[in-house]
Amino acid sequence: MGIDWPCSKTGGTMRTVEWHDGRVRIIDQRQIPWELAVLDFENYTDIARAIREEVVRGAQAIGVAAGFGLALAAQQFDATNRLELLRYLEEAAALLRSAHPGNEILNRSIDRVMATAGHASLQRVKDIRREMLRDVQRRADEIVSANHQMGELGAALIRDGDTVLHHGYTGALSTVEWGTALGVIRTAHEQGKQVRVLVDETRPSFDGARLSAWELKTLGIPFEIIPDGAAGHFMQQGQVNLVLVGAYRAVLNGDTANTTGTYALAVLARENGIPFYTVTPAAHIDVHLSGGKELPAVALNPEEVRAPFGISIVPADYPAQNPAFDMTPGRYTTGVITENGIVYPPYSINLRKATRGQLQPGLQSGPDEPPKPEKADQLPLLGDL
Amino acid sequence: MGIDWPCSKTGGTMRTVEWHDGRVRIIDQRQIPWELAVLDFENYTDIARAIREEVVRGAQAIGVAAGFGLALAAQQFDATNRLELLRYLEEAAALLRSAHPGNEILNRSIDRVMATAGHASLQRVKDIRREMLRDVQRRADEIVSANHQMGELGAALIRDGDTVLHHGYTGALSTVEWGTALGVIRTAHEQGKQVRVLVDETRPSFDGARLSAWELKTLGIPFEIIPDGAAGHFMQQGQVNLVLVGAYRAVLNGDTANTTGTYALAVLARENGIPFYTVTPAAHIDVHLSGGKELPAVALNPEEVRAPFGISIVPADYPAQNPAFDMTPGRYTTGVITENGIVYPPYSINLRKATRGQLQPGLQSGPDEPPKPEKADQLPLLGDL
Repeated sequence: MGIDWPCSKTGGTMRTVEWHDGRVRIIDQRQIPWELAVLDFENYTDIARAIREEVVRGAQAIGVAAGFGLALAAQQFDATNRLELLRYLEEAAALLRSAHPGNEILNRSIDRVMATAGHASLQRVKDIRREMLRDVQRRADEIVSANHQMGELGAALIRDGDTVLHHGYTGALSTVEWGTALGVIRTAHEQGKQVRVLVDETRPSFDGARLSAWELKTLGIPFEIIPDGAAGHFMQQGQVNLVLVGAYRAVLNGDTANTTGTYALAVLARENGIPFYTVTPAAHIDVHLSGGKELPAVALNPEEVRAPFGISIVPADYPAQNPAFDMTPGRYTTGVITENGIVYPPYSINLRKATRGQLQPGLQSGPDEPPKPEKADQLPLLGDL
Repeated sequence: MGIDWPCSKTGGTMRTVEWHDGRVRIIDQRQIPWELAVLDFENYTDIARAIREEVVRGAQAIGVAAGFGLALAAQQFDATNRLELLRYLEEAAALLRSAHPGNEILNRSIDRVMATAGHASLQRVKDIRREMLRDVQRRADEIVSANHQMGELGAALIRDGDTVLHHGYTGALSTVEWGTALGVIRTAHEQGKQVRVLVDETRPSFDGARLSAWELKTLGIPFEIIPDGAAGHFMQQGQVNLVLVGAYRAVLNGDTANTTGTYALAVLARENGIPFYTVTPAAHIDVHLSGGKELPAVALNPEEVRAPFGISIVPADYPAQNPAFDMTPGRYTTGVITENGIVYPPYSINLRKATRGQLQPGLQSGPDEPPKPEKADQLPLLGDL
C-alpha cells in the first residue's frame, strides 16, 4: 500500500497509530529518517513490546497505541462471558502499563478504556469489544482535533519571515497526527507564511535531528539542525524570533517538564527578549500539582549518552548521566498554547481554566451515547480574562 | 618506549608536543579515548598535515607544534647561507599558517620563531637553527609554567567536596601540559581536595566526552559525562558549585570567545547564583578589541553535526549549522583566571593589567641571552587593586 505521509486535513492517508482492517498499524519511528515503514500488530503483547522498544513514542501516541492494544486483546481472546473478558483485560492492561512505567498519559488512556469495558450497561462480550474500539477511536480523534486547534491558535504568533527555535520532538509521530509545537509551525506554513526552523538536535536521543528534521523535510519547511549548545548563539545573534517547545506535564504554577535542554532555552530566551511558548494539550496539565518541584527527577539509561545508536563515543565504563526531562519554571514561559486557548500568567488561575475546557465527564450517560464534553469557555487568550 | 601520561611535576615523562631526539613527537588526539598513541615527525610538511587532520588541537599545542615544525624545517633544509634558509622558512611558515587559518595564537607563535630566525645578530645557519629550537622550547616552557600557575591560583576557588561543571576540552592535550580549566581541577585534586566534575559532552565535536573525560579518568578524578542540554538541570538541582571553562580569546570588556555552548552555561550559572570562571592564559587576552562583537562568527563544516565520527545521524542533504564558538559577555563572568592573577571586574581596567604581567619584550638583548620577561606585578586578585 502507498503511504502518503504526512497526512493533512486535505489529503494524506495515515495517522501514526491507527486501527486498520482489524489490526493496529503503527509507523516504526526507529526507521526515521531513513525509511517510512509501518508495522501491523495482531496481538496486544506485540504492542507492549513495540512501546518498550520505542517503535512508537510520545505520550499521546503511546496512549492511543495502548488503547488499541486493549481493544485488540478483547478481540483476540475468545471469552465466553463478560467477567472472563474483564479478567483477561486486567492482565493485558497491566502488561501494557509496564511497557512504559510511570507514563501518566498512558495510564490514563488505559484507565479510560478499562472504564468503558467495565461499564455496567455493557453485558455482552461483543458489545464490550465494540465500545472499547469506539472509545479509543474517539480518543484518537480528540487528540488530533486538539492538535489542529493548537496549530490554529499558535500559528497566530508566527509572523511571515520568522525563525522559530524548536527543541525535542513534538510532531505527528508522537501525537497521532499533526503535532504540538511542530504542529503550530506546520499550520503557519500551510497558511502560506515563510517560516524557518532552527532544530535543536536534542541529545542524547537526537530526536530533534532525526524526527523533527525529517518531518520538516517531508513538509517542505526550511530548517537547519544545530547542536543544543548553539541555541544561545543564534538567539544572541538576533536570528530567533520565537521559541516553541512541547511539554510532558504542566503544573498549576506554569512549571513544565519537557525534554532535557528546554530549561536552558527558556532562560536564554528571556535573557534575549525572545518569546518562549510551550505547546501542550490540556490533558497534560495537572492542576493537582502546585509546582514543578513535585515532579521527581527521572534518570534514563546513560548508555544513550555514551553510545548513541550503539556506537561508542567513550568506553562503557565512563560514568554518565541522562536525566529524562528538566523543569522549566513558569516565570520563564511567555505563554502555554493549549487547544482551549493560549494561557498567559497568572498561570495558577488561567491553567485551571484551560483544563476546565478540556474536562471529560466520562461515560456517565452510557457508552452508546457518550455525553458531550463540557463546553469550553470561549477563551482564545485566557490571560486576557 | 613507555609513555607515562599524564606527566606531572613530580613524575611523568611526556608533554603533548615535544622535541625528541631531533624529531617532533606528538600525542595523536584522534585516538583518544581508545588509545594513547604518539607520532614522530621528521618533516614540517607532515606537521602541517597533522595540524590540518587534528592530530594536534588546541591553540597552545598547535602553536608549539608549528614552532617545532619551523625548527624542523630549518634543520631538514640544507641551506648554504642565512638568506637561503630564511627564504625557505618563509615558505614553511606559510604552509604551517595555512594548516589552521585564522588561528591567532598559531600566527603569533610563528611570528615569534620567524623573528628569532631573522634576528640580525644571527648570521650563521647553525646558530639560527639552534636559537629557533631554543626559542620554541622556551615558549613551551612558558606555556606550561603559566598553566601550573593558573592551576595554583584557580584551585583556591575549589572547596573540598565541590562539583565543578566543565565545558569543552581544556586539558593537557590542547595546552602542551597540565591544561587551563582542567588544569585548575587537576591542581585542586592533587592538593587532596575531593572534586567531582560534570563533563559537558560538548557537541558536535564530543571533545568533552572524549578528551576531558579521558583525562579525568586517567587522573583518577571522579566525573560524569552529561549532554550539553542537561547542564541547566544539574545547576537547578543545586548540584553544581562552580563552572570552569577555557577561552579562545578574551577581549577588553571581559567578553570571551569559547567552544559553542559556553554562553548558555554563563547565563544559566548567573541565573542559579553559581560562580562562573574563565581560565585562560594572558596570551589569549586581546586588549585591542574592545568587545566580543568585534569577533566575527565563524562557521565550521556542518558535517560534524550530521555525522559525528563519520556516522550519519541524518541524511547528508539535511541542512545544519556548526558555529565555531560563541561569545560570552563579560557581565556573566565572575572572574578570569590567568597566570598573572584572577581578574575581576571592571575588566577593561584589570584585564589590561593582567596582560602587562605577561608581556614578552622579545629578543632585544640578543637571542643567546634572552631578557627575562617583565616581572609580573604581584596581582593575585587583580580586581582587588
